[in-house]
Amino acid sequence: MQLTILGCYAATPRTITNPTAQLLEINNRMFLIDCGEGTQVQLRKNKIKFSKINQVFISHLHGDHFFGLIGLISTFSLLGRTTDLHVYGPKGIKEIILLQLKLSNSWTNYGLFFHELDSEESVTIFEDEKVLVTTIPLQHRVYTNGFLFQEKAGTRKLNMDAVLNYEIESCYYQKIKNGKDITLEDGRIIPNSELTFDPIPPKSYAFCSDTVYHEPVIPIIENVDVLYHESTFLESEESLAQKTLHSTAKEAARIALKANVKQLILGHYSTRYESITLFKEEAETIFPEVLLAEDGISFEF
Amino acid sequence: MQLTILGCYAATPRTITNPTAQLLEINNRMFLIDCGEGTQVQLRKNKIKFSKINQVFISHLHGDHFFGLIGLISTFSLLGRTTDLHVYGPKGIKEIILLQLKLSNSWTNYGLFFHELDSEESVTIFEDEKVLVTTIPLQHRVYTNGFLFQEKAGTRKLNMDAVLNYEIESCYYQKIKNGKDITLEDGRIIPNSELTFDPIPPKSYAFCSDTVYHEPVIPIIENVDVLYHESTFLESEESLAQKTLHSTAKEAARIALKANVKQLILGHYSTRYESITLFKEEAETIFPEVLLAEDGISFEF
Repeated sequence: MQLTILGCYAATPRTITNPTAQLLEINNRMFLIDCGEGTQVQLRKNKIKFSKINQVFISHLHGDHFFGLIGLISTFSLLGRTTDLHVYGPKGIKEIILLQLKLSNSWTNYGLFFHELDSEESVTIFEDEKVLVTTIPLQHRVYTNGFLFQEKAGTRKLNMDAVLNYEIESCYYQKIKNGKDITLEDGRIIPNSELTFDPIPPKSYAFCSDTVYHEPVIPIIENVDVLYHESTFLESEESLAQKTLHSTAKEAARIALKANVKQLILGHYSTRYESITLFKEEAETIFPEVLLAEDGISFEF
Repeated sequence: MQLTILGCYAATPRTITNPTAQLLEINNRMFLIDCGEGTQVQLRKNKIKFSKINQVFISHLHGDHFFGLIGLISTFSLLGRTTDLHVYGPKGIKEIILLQLKLSNSWTNYGLFFHELDSEESVTIFEDEKVLVTTIPLQHRVYTNGFLFQEKAGTRKLNMDAVLNYEIESCYYQKIKNGKDITLEDGRIIPNSELTFDPIPPKSYAFCSDTVYHEPVIPIIENVDVLYHESTFLESEESLAQKTLHSTAKEAARIALKANVKQLILGHYSTRYESITLFKEEAETIFPEVLLAEDGISFEF
């Protein structure tokens, strides 16, 4: 998995900071998560082939998370896109986009599909042979979901030395990869563990923004490899975080600790702070593995 | 008048070019003309105090002319604006903005007024003691208006030497500035021309984008000081200009010539061209006073 942070600041786009947008690449699939104003320019700056994005996930309908979507959809048309695009987001997103396409008399020349979300429970919203995406209901001032991206477990890896040694024909390889034992012509049963190695462990990524400190997310994101959790404020603004239904860096770290995640990425910083280093310092008093999101950087995991 | 080009390229925002937006300052009034995606960041980059913008004029509902408006309106709220904001634009602009404010549960804390346009004739849409704004109906793929900004003629300037020489009391000054002759106590009539100088000639600016070559604009913009006319294409793409209802640089120059304007500014360049210098060269074969818009530059006139 590779995660590119296109924007990780709260509220308004500014000269050097961008509102929320992330690109997650898993097994050659490119998922766009949130799409603040200017996301299409951030995609260009980061030299991302946008034509490969087929799924866009919008957490909630605050402007800093979706005002760039209509521009991206229009640009896809201008660039001659023909592949379907799927948009997952709160009820209302379809009306917003279609109204603008209608009034500009600019229908897309590709299939544009909306999957509107309104469940208060965690639900599966995307699945193919490699990846599963489920919602993480969050608590914010409007209806909001985070998203959990899980790679599916791969098949077992063939131990070619063993397979050749037993002279097993290649038509059985898929069966072996799927975990079956093999009966040889002489009647001997070779257990699968002798013929295969464990698959590469599947990775998982949880995106949680925007939300107040909200323990119900913990069972959903338990043991994920990487958690992005919003930390709009430092501890000194804890009461403001409560009031605006955002989190502090320490609260994000507390969720990471209780959910036993491997790494925590912080972001969605309020633009009131001149430096973001204190976010890491405060979070590390609670949870050790903290990374700071910054516009334009990528994480591999 | 000072005109700052915030963006002057057609279609999509890119790493180094921006879609249409201009800031026109007349007598301390700041008018925003069009508002493509990223306009608020361009305002910041150009160090413009956005709180002073009270009127926004939207030419038409193609994305490269209005996708930045909802972000600007939201940012005004976040910055604590309390002054009324007036938006002039095609029918539908109000529904687009209000739908997004409703779904994000983010009503503005200032007065937001929409003046929807649907006339096919040139009409006055804004007037105060210093400035008059009228529409310039254009011909494009959707309903489109250009805008003509006219400074009102100022009062005459007092010739203080003459006024003091005749010992005229200050309570008569306004009358004199308004062009009246003065009768002295001894019965002598002093003609106004002896007491005043001509006022500074009022300036005018016409914004025409987007449009095909369209002669009906000529009587509306006749004799303006500065005409901004779109020139999406060079002559080599003339048939494409026809088809998409855009203009070439030469067509813009032909309008400038026939309307007897003083200066022509070209812009709304297609992003297909690596350099814009040919636009000026082609236009100058028809009309001599050609300037090229570029993102971030200002013209004083």
